[in-house]
Amino acid sequence: MPTYTPPLRDMQFVMHEVFKVTDEFKAIPRYAEADADTINAILEEAGKFAAEVTFPLNAAGDVEGCKLDPATHEVTTPAGFKEAYAKFVEAGWPALSCDPEFGGQGLPLVVNQCFYEMMNSANQAWTMYPGLTHGAYAALATHGTPEQQKTWLPKMTSGEWTGTMCLTEAHCGTDLGLMRTKAEPQADGSYRITGNKIFISAGEHDMAENIVHLVLARLPDAPPGIKGISLFIVPKFLVKADGTLGERNPVFCGGLEHKMGIHGNATAQINLDGAAGWMVGQPNKGMQAMFVMMNAARLGVGNQSLGLTEVAYQNALAYAKERLQMRSLSGTKAKDKPADPIIVHPDVRKMLLTAKAYAEGGRALLVFCSVLLDKSHFHPDEKVRKDSDELLSLLTPIVKAFTTDNGHIATNACLQVFGGHGYIHEWGMEQFARDNRINMIYEGTNTIQSLDLLGRKILGNNGATLKKFGKLVAQLVQEEGVNEDMAEFVNPVAYLGEQMTKFTTEIGFRGFQNPDEVGAAAVDYLRVAGHLVHGYFWARMAQVALREIAAGNTDPFYQAKLQTARFYFAKLFPETAMLMRTARAGAKPLMDTDLALA
Amino acid sequence: MPTYTPPLRDMQFVMHEVFKVTDEFKAIPRYAEADADTINAILEEAGKFAAEVTFPLNAAGDVEGCKLDPATHEVTTPAGFKEAYAKFVEAGWPALSCDPEFGGQGLPLVVNQCFYEMMNSANQAWTMYPGLTHGAYAALATHGTPEQQKTWLPKMTSGEWTGTMCLTEAHCGTDLGLMRTKAEPQADGSYRITGNKIFISAGEHDMAENIVHLVLARLPDAPPGIKGISLFIVPKFLVKADGTLGERNPVFCGGLEHKMGIHGNATAQINLDGAAGWMVGQPNKGMQAMFVMMNAARLGVGNQSLGLTEVAYQNALAYAKERLQMRSLSGTKAKDKPADPIIVHPDVRKMLLTAKAYAEGGRALLVFCSVLLDKSHFHPDEKVRKDSDELLSLLTPIVKAFTTDNGHIATNACLQVFGGHGYIHEWGMEQFARDNRINMIYEGTNTIQSLDLLGRKILGNNGATLKKFGKLVAQLVQEEGVNEDMAEFVNPVAYLGEQMTKFTTEIGFRGFQNPDEVGAAAVDYLRVAGHLVHGYFWARMAQVALREIAAGNTDPFYQAKLQTARFYFAKLFPETAMLMRTARAGAKPLMDTDLALA
Repeated sequence: MPTYTPPLRDMQFVMHEVFKVTDEFKAIPRYAEADADTINAILEEAGKFAAEVTFPLNAAGDVEGCKLDPATHEVTTPAGFKEAYAKFVEAGWPALSCDPEFGGQGLPLVVNQCFYEMMNSANQAWTMYPGLTHGAYAALATHGTPEQQKTWLPKMTSGEWTGTMCLTEAHCGTDLGLMRTKAEPQADGSYRITGNKIFISAGEHDMAENIVHLVLARLPDAPPGIKGISLFIVPKFLVKADGTLGERNPVFCGGLEHKMGIHGNATAQINLDGAAGWMVGQPNKGMQAMFVMMNAARLGVGNQSLGLTEVAYQNALAYAKERLQMRSLSGTKAKDKPADPIIVHPDVRKMLLTAKAYAEGGRALLVFCSVLLDKSHFHPDEKVRKDSDELLSLLTPIVKAFTTDNGHIATNACLQVFGGHGYIHEWGMEQFARDNRINMIYEGTNTIQSLDLLGRKILGNNGATLKKFGKLVAQLVQEEGVNEDMAEFVNPVAYLGEQMTKFTTEIGFRGFQNPDEVGAAAVDYLRVAGHLVHGYFWARMAQVALREIAAGNTDPFYQAKLQTARFYFAKLFPETAMLMRTARAGAKPLMDTDLALA
Repeated sequence: MPTYTPPLRDMQFVMHEVFKVTDEFKAIPRYAEADADTINAILEEAGKFAAEVTFPLNAAGDVEGCKLDPATHEVTTPAGFKEAYAKFVEAGWPALSCDPEFGGQGLPLVVNQCFYEMMNSANQAWTMYPGLTHGAYAALATHGTPEQQKTWLPKMTSGEWTGTMCLTEAHCGTDLGLMRTKAEPQADGSYRITGNKIFISAGEHDMAENIVHLVLARLPDAPPGIKGISLFIVPKFLVKADGTLGERNPVFCGGLEHKMGIHGNATAQINLDGAAGWMVGQPNKGMQAMFVMMNAARLGVGNQSLGLTEVAYQNALAYAKERLQMRSLSGTKAKDKPADPIIVHPDVRKMLLTAKAYAEGGRALLVFCSVLLDKSHFHPDEKVRKDSDELLSLLTPIVKAFTTDNGHIATNACLQVFGGHGYIHEWGMEQFARDNRINMIYEGTNTIQSLDLLGRKILGNNGATLKKFGKLVAQLVQEEGVNEDMAEFVNPVAYLGEQMTKFTTEIGFRGFQNPDEVGAAAVDYLRVAGHLVHGYFWARMAQVALREIAAGNTDPFYQAKLQTARFYFAKLFPETAMLMRTARAGAKPLMDTDLALA
């Protein structure tokens, strides 16, 4: 019976004390009135929804899973899912950061970010139903025609209809250029779509009255490969001119996958049998529109692991305080009890602090990114929009891969704190680890993220974008370079930044001669970059904490933050020593292995 | 659907070419006639049993799980488990390394080691039923009276009866001193045992006609804590004087756990309701007898992860060769195909080689340990027996923790090679990862192993036992110190050996002042020790390979071994750079965190 408490205090700290988001919002007319009290009040309510409505469905949903009726192609979600979704829609939660033009509340995306962190802590499988809708919404909001937007976005904003992303086919996941699904143009401007998709999350369910599938397919005359792919809206039910639902479109669920986790989410095989579709954006430019969804989804997947890291941490911490087992090596701590609580043991603390440090560092990173997203969309200054977009594009693969790998480390560490009980379903810990495991895979495996980061985002523009982040680090070093109290936090980040600059140049040269050198270094490189980013945010969080303490603030929150920062730099950050070494070992030990891998 | 091929060639390499086990056996009268051909022929048959009989039951057993009938307390194992067990018994496999005095075949334990590696690859859940019997057998063979041995061991040797270890209770896992189960002496010399045990693997099932539970309990006058625990034989069915089964003993299964994995194995809650028991060994000395089981079980758990690492590797390798996705970064490799097989990608190779290197290094370690076990039991020279036992005692926590952590890394890496398909049950990969996850926990969590290694086995005798292993390293350095071809393998091991010696002294001093320093360093220390040991074995394997190649042997096996060795030293061994650093960071960043963990 796991429990969950929304981490509101830490969210407020990150939003208001570290990043001062409402100061940023003052420069954005759309958000000029978003004050801290409003944001906090909304998140308090949002946290209640997560903790009270969807969290109680999480463990049972895992056991029950989704069921497909092969005769009707209808999917039944676990008990309570549908009712929770009705409450979700009724309360207006889907509309939080959607555009007022389509009925949205127009709140900053950072509010949605924190809301979804809590929803992911509460129930990742459930949250994927509305979560995917946001990706589809973003694609249509960016690339849809005004008429398409008018038809689809209000109902997706209200949550009455949900969305999906139909990309993968059995023979192509990473390599979408191999796609076979066909789109034949019809006289009325629509298309008939035929093909088979797999791994469609939230692909079929009973929670909403319609599902808006966004489907990648090929036109008959499309060039081969990735440049011949177009994007289509393929609704479960057609929509009549008056906006009401019409006939059933032949886009059917042909099967559900039996998965390691996220059992409550229907991972559907989707058969398109000449289904009616409408093109989004330009012919053969589907990947552009798809990437709007994909980038949103990649941040969303990082957020899923952030949520799981937080909830796993909370439960492991509670267990470690209660579970009595052995005595402290440094002498009995709980004399009145038959044994000490296991939190006295150094390695139990290490497992707990690992999860805590990755949760709090990840939260800072995700909040920072969602402010960048807000600025890239709505800031009046074009340069700010462009800079924000570029920095976000650099950070997106780090959010996706680093946060989900950390989620794997953290959920498994927290499971381990429970000993044998961690392996048993009723304690909830093993579900967190299983649910998290998909996050390292979907929306581009973590290896693909690393190639996107190193190959495309960094070497692709000779390190220019990396320098943007480097400037933030340099600014911090300049601000705090003579502050002795900050040295323990700033120095390792500054040092790693220098090392990375050198290593980036080095790998650029090597990769020029042999591109496999980039592939061999990329995964290690991304994790180093992840630590640079987390290290930077930990230094900024420590900076705020030190200032508050110096100013006489006695809230123990700030000392706690410093303790966690010190743990992070002492025990997690040194992973970079290994990663720089293995990355430098290069491609040869991997590629000269044809006999070993025969 | 996963496949499995017994790795017979590598087993032969390790046994006969690296360790020359039959030369060792010539000095042991009991094994004098165990020649290589016999051993190889037995393992070939054993491999067939694993691949053909139990492996096909693995995936279905995971889905079906075990079922308890609450009315009869009887457990039904998954379809086919019982029939496979009957074949296992009929073929005489349980008796392989048992004592001829009790009907065993008296073969070296190393044969059983390799057999069980294959059985674990094939089906860990199934293999735990006979696997636990070996632990119970070992305890009775060492501490049972001649009469007890005569009553119980022949049927355990034949496999007609299986065994269990009943240690854990709901409130005590690691801390057995808190145990509450009571044993009341009876006039006839037996005891009435009352209490509740949990997490009893293979605790109830329908595969054998009787189950011999070895139960830890307290005598009425027992001193508190760990020094007041005795061990008892508590059979499911009492045994009459003529050896036939008598009445049902009130030792009942009260429930089965719903677990993350090993679903095919019944993890039972065992209620002892005044069950008849017979003491093994001396009153209040139960932990001694228990440790015989436990040490056997710890090696066995390492072997479980070795088996899963191997089977996960084989399947990921096959998939990586077949799955076509994207082109190689260094230019198209399969021009006739729509994409290249993913094995062309450096990071896919890294994931595969990680599993391969840990499988082959782990195999060397486990085979080495089982030869030590053979020598510690049966070598005619007492000094050899003692030395072997001491070295084995040092290596046991490394086998348990390092091999199971590596199994976690490897099974997850191999799952990742499959992309989304890795998350789907039918491909088998996610089951390997789930099944492996328990191995890091049971028979003493990996943290407990690290405290056993650093606190008890190393600092407990001022590093004397570590020096025994150091001598092996020194010997290799002496042999190969001037051989340039060996430098790349020997130098890193020699360097790490020196660093570890220094660090051991340092941590000894620190721990003397503050024992929490030992707890803070132990987990990192164990992984460094694991790499020292694997590094040593990789160097020895490379030594054999280089000699064969120099002698003109053109079998590609030897080049493959060198390639894997080079990968290991380039990409896995550098983890020690991080571990030494985090271990040296000490206890303070963990223990000065009361506010962070409030």
